[in-house]
Amino acid sequence: MIKYSNGLTYKKSQTKVSSNKVAFSFSSANRGMALEEDIIQSNEYYLRNNMALIYKRPTPIQVVKVDYEKGPRITEAYFSEKSTTDFNGVYQGRYIDIEAKSTQSKTSFPLSNITKKQFEHLSNVIKLGGLAFFIVEFAKLQRTFIVEAKQVIEFKNNEERRSIPVSCFEEIGREIKRGFSPRLDYLSYVDEIHRNS
Amino acid sequence: MIKYSNGLTYKKSQTKVSSNKVAFSFSSANRGMALEEDIIQSNEYYLRNNMALIYKRPTPIQVVKVDYEKGPRITEAYFSEKSTTDFNGVYQGRYIDIEAKSTQSKTSFPLSNITKKQFEHLSNVIKLGGLAFFIVEFAKLQRTFIVEAKQVIEFKNNEERRSIPVSCFEEIGREIKRGFSPRLDYLSYVDEIHRNS
Repeated sequence: MIKYSNGLTYKKSQTKVSSNKVAFSFSSANRGMALEEDIIQSNEYYLRNNMALIYKRPTPIQVVKVDYEKGPRITEAYFSEKSTTDFNGVYQGRYIDIEAKSTQSKTSFPLSNITKKQFEHLSNVIKLGGLAFFIVEFAKLQRTFIVEAKQVIEFKNNEERRSIPVSCFEEIGREIKRGFSPRLDYLSYVDEIHRNS
Repeated sequence: MIKYSNGLTYKKSQTKVSSNKVAFSFSSANRGMALEEDIIQSNEYYLRNNMALIYKRPTPIQVVKVDYEKGPRITEAYFSEKSTTDFNGVYQGRYIDIEAKSTQSKTSFPLSNITKKQFEHLSNVIKLGGLAFFIVEFAKLQRTFIVEAKQVIEFKNNEERRSIPVSCFEEIGREIKRGFSPRLDYLSYVDEIHRNS
């Protein structure tokens, strides 16, 4: 079992994995990885259509031992805590940074899902003029929202509650409609949010 | 021995390594890692001074086997070929992408140091309005240049020679003066190059 910072746990199904991805058996409750896959597929669509270049950051891995006789082959390493976010890239010349989160809650998104380092990173991006967003999925409601990181930071700093209610996402964010290609057309909302902010 | 895509080889000195960095014994000939460290130190300076947020991308690692009983602990993995570049981030709201290369040649920089995927990646960045640069060090000359990726791509497409002479860098790039903090103040040239391009 791997416990992710988003509070989800995954059971392993295989030990053979590739391309920095780990293959897990999904139950309907384990949607965090599915959200990531939907965003990656959408990013591939955006690149094919010359709209944006947005990459998944490689999972940070702490390498402890390397066998230089065979390759080199890494023989001991660990998944590290993320100090940044899931995705970044270029959109209309601008820097864009996105963190994707999935929650099992039906009512609100717990801010404890976002690490202190991630808040710091996103604050820096905003300060330096970059675009910064969260994509938040309420897995059991099958609803996904995009919201400016700025709004989430303001909520954290000004509100007493430690979780953002779904109704608040309806107000400060936009619900992303699901499609075939791209599966999650979040970029259309980036324009809209940005025009109005 | 590790053979890097930039043609340098490093001898291992230790098997204990940390933070995704591998510790090597440096000879004066092995300056590729030193260049990277200089850029990382400069980026830390830029962030402290609210000038830019530019990160080293994690080394892509292909995970093959994970032992879930202990951690999870990665027990077999390999360094993957890079499909993107060394650094990216945000500068004045814009996306910036940088590839750093060090060469042992005293006369010219071989274009074979840059992979096809890296050329594709940088072409995409430019097409989408991002800033894209190479920082090229002639280690034995102790000279380091910053040059727009666009210029390198044009050289590759239009010139017959498969390496860029030092004299050409003097023309299409800027030589970066070395200092104490930041050690390699490349960002000041980004403005200058951009104003004139």
